[in-house]
Amino acid sequence: MQIDVIPCVNESRYDEFINKTVIAVDVLRATSTIVTALSNGCKGIIPVETVCQAKNLQENGDLLAGERYCKKITGFDLGNSPFEFMTPEIEGKRIVMTTTNGTRALHKSGKATYILAGAMLNAAACADAVLKLKKDIVILCAGTKDEFSLEDGLCAGLIIEETKRRIELSELNDFAMAMNSAFLHNQGRIEEAILQCSNGKRLCKMGLKEDVLYCAKMNFINTVPFLSGDVMIPYEF
Amino acid sequence: MQIDVIPCVNESRYDEFINKTVIAVDVLRATSTIVTALSNGCKGIIPVETVCQAKNLQENGDLLAGERYCKKITGFDLGNSPFEFMTPEIEGKRIVMTTTNGTRALHKSGKATYILAGAMLNAAACADAVLKLKKDIVILCAGTKDEFSLEDGLCAGLIIEETKRRIELSELNDFAMAMNSAFLHNQGRIEEAILQCSNGKRLCKMGLKEDVLYCAKMNFINTVPFLSGDVMIPYEF
Repeated sequence: MQIDVIPCVNESRYDEFINKTVIAVDVLRATSTIVTALSNGCKGIIPVETVCQAKNLQENGDLLAGERYCKKITGFDLGNSPFEFMTPEIEGKRIVMTTTNGTRALHKSGKATYILAGAMLNAAACADAVLKLKKDIVILCAGTKDEFSLEDGLCAGLIIEETKRRIELSELNDFAMAMNSAFLHNQGRIEEAILQCSNGKRLCKMGLKEDVLYCAKMNFINTVPFLSGDVMIPYEF
Repeated sequence: MQIDVIPCVNESRYDEFINKTVIAVDVLRATSTIVTALSNGCKGIIPVETVCQAKNLQENGDLLAGERYCKKITGFDLGNSPFEFMTPEIEGKRIVMTTTNGTRALHKSGKATYILAGAMLNAAACADAVLKLKKDIVILCAGTKDEFSLEDGLCAGLIIEETKRRIELSELNDFAMAMNSAFLHNQGRIEEAILQCSNGKRLCKMGLKEDVLYCAKMNFINTVPFLSGDVMIPYEF
């Protein structure tokens, strides 16, 4: 089993995903929030790219969620903070969600055989899932505005480490080796590393330090969001 | 002083280099070879992108050097192995050189105020030079065929570490932080890491393991190639 890591969405080509399991990673905050929502009883999440699409796809009873520039979209029920997705109001509900980079990563992965959402929170569970799916793996870091984001790279490094603990990997691409090393160097100080990276600092300035600290928790949730048709649902082990 | 690292040439935009010192890095093997040549008495190296340009720019007494697919170009005096540039024949000579990725990185940096060539071999000397030049720094990893190469990233991480030993850096971009961490995780086993990466394995298969081991030597040469007009000459401290 091979793992490739791609540094950001605009670096990826659709054909790289054919016959693979793709794990889309947007630690701050889209995939952390999706993992949290599904582990709190949300029935399914429909990731879309635009506000317009979100409104068009909303059916009776669905909630709308999403952010632009880290802020909730006007008229939407929820933003993109994981803490908003820990309430009983989302239980049994479908949520149509649009975020800046995370949903782009999920859509870019369209040609993959299986598409999962990964975060620090569910890295170990992701490793369990990819072993069951028995395909080579691509970890697609969402990044920010077409640039690499450290927190996504560290998460890729953690998922690789968790997978290595379970099986012997046949190969890692150069970027995967680099991210695995970067994770191992920082594993004793992940919170600090994520607070110091560009998105971590930006969210702290906006008063969202608690979000950053929550998203930095490792292997805290066993839910793996799995794209079934257009809806992310919990992967059934 | 700030350091940004760019993962590969196609990821860079010309305007990112304005008013900066750029260090172009192609550890296997272009910049390692340029460093070696200048430290062995070569008068100057003219980096060009194509074989045709190399032939057109050759003046009386100049040597032609370069590779395609890791092999010497037919009719050229020298290939791209650093060991070819340790002979008395290059003393006092100008060399016109074309390589696949390294010279592209040097040309892409055109809008920078200062352009240096960096390698594992001269990382500490690069740190000394950038301090004298007093500009923010961009380390441009050449990569291979538009993809990130681990050895270039580890070299960027080493140059950052050497710079941090000399001054307090005001800021690193996310990719620079990741590369610095990856270097620190591997610093006790750099040879092994570079033998395992994609280019390291490819060169070993071609019987060029000695080249890889030589290029993995850290802080071994004090020469810093500095682009003056169209010619790389040793930076004068």
